[in-house]
Amino acid sequence: MPHTYKYPRPALTVDCVVFGLDRQHTLKVMLIQRKLSPFQGDWALPGGFVRMDESLEAAALRELCEETGIERLFLEQLYTFGAVNRDPRERVVTVAYYALINLEEHPVKAASDASDAAWFAIDALPSLAFDHDQILKIALDRLKAKVRYEPIGFELLPRKFTLFQLQRLYETVLGQELDKRNFRKKILNMGLLRELDERQQDVPHRAAKLYQFDEATYRQLREKGFNFEI
Amino acid sequence: MPHTYKYPRPALTVDCVVFGLDRQHTLKVMLIQRKLSPFQGDWALPGGFVRMDESLEAAALRELCEETGIERLFLEQLYTFGAVNRDPRERVVTVAYYALINLEEHPVKAASDASDAAWFAIDALPSLAFDHDQILKIALDRLKAKVRYEPIGFELLPRKFTLFQLQRLYETVLGQELDKRNFRKKILNMGLLRELDERQQDVPHRAAKLYQFDEATYRQLREKGFNFEI
Repeated sequence: MPHTYKYPRPALTVDCVVFGLDRQHTLKVMLIQRKLSPFQGDWALPGGFVRMDESLEAAALRELCEETGIERLFLEQLYTFGAVNRDPRERVVTVAYYALINLEEHPVKAASDASDAAWFAIDALPSLAFDHDQILKIALDRLKAKVRYEPIGFELLPRKFTLFQLQRLYETVLGQELDKRNFRKKILNMGLLRELDERQQDVPHRAAKLYQFDEATYRQLREKGFNFEI
Repeated sequence: MPHTYKYPRPALTVDCVVFGLDRQHTLKVMLIQRKLSPFQGDWALPGGFVRMDESLEAAALRELCEETGIERLFLEQLYTFGAVNRDPRERVVTVAYYALINLEEHPVKAASDASDAAWFAIDALPSLAFDHDQILKIALDRLKAKVRYEPIGFELLPRKFTLFQLQRLYETVLGQELDKRNFRKKILNMGLLRELDERQQDVPHRAAKLYQFDEATYRQLREKGFNFEI
């Protein structure tokens, strides 16, 4: 049944930038391969049209699950992209969301709406459909800015991790190496971490101590913010 | 001429939260009085429907000018609100923008699309139409967070200002008093201000020194961020 309005309306979509960290500390993003035109066969961010009876966030979660199988994650709104010609078909405005997840805990399966879904390292990306290159760049900028004024890692790292893993996460997001002693001093001074009475297992050499985030402090610092000077 | 689509579409609007600071250092927000139903006669944020041939930001600037006469300002995107029932008429998704301006430099005149437009002190607001209370609250939260990690004031204060005026701005935005000595020390240490060889005029007592923002440092700190601990 067609739907008729007095004035023309843009179509409304949502897109998801899901970042994940793999075992090798590589920062990756989830992409899907488009089944239909336009940009058929190209890689793109997971996303699709908003239904009339669901919130924007519900639409983003649904599309992400339909296209990649990823579910149960916390999406944050990134930005709304509304350039007049961003879609070759017609005017489409898209609300972009982003999330950080632990890649190992979220198995991926390309579902019915995409021909493939896969993790791509952010330094080895294909050219993306629509303005998705730009959306991804803005999500990365947001992530880099976020690192400076609130804690990150809770969603990306395993529950128990080494200081080396945490440092590699910061280095990966920031795209630069950090001084080990300085990094450790700053992070430990924040009271963000709880040292565990455990060490890494299955490592060839000296096993490093394991840490956990102190959830209360983490939440508090997320609310209150801080400045992590690089 | 009616417009027909295969699937139903939400209507798309923009809304503007424009903050201004008056001579008495009161933080105000620009509201308009609705001419038409729903919420006829109620106060609301300026805004309206996005046209097919304009970007979201262009729509926000146009609506703001049409309804309040305010023009030439830098709008930043705040958030997109898309709850299913936020408008009693039908599904309407709105992209909210916000801006900081110097109230004295932007005269207001209610234009054709609103029956009135006026500045309201943020601690003496009427109840607003739609979900505009919530939009305004989120804009205020954003402003408070922003104060902590990037410089503010450039758009709000006169070109030359006293340290007292700057402190009052911070206190107003944060909603709490700050220690004078601490505030001055922190602000001056940032290298953000240039002390002028001028003093206030037309004041009854001791005239205070005037300052200007150092534009290069201001821009740099805005990019790089900092942490202003309260």
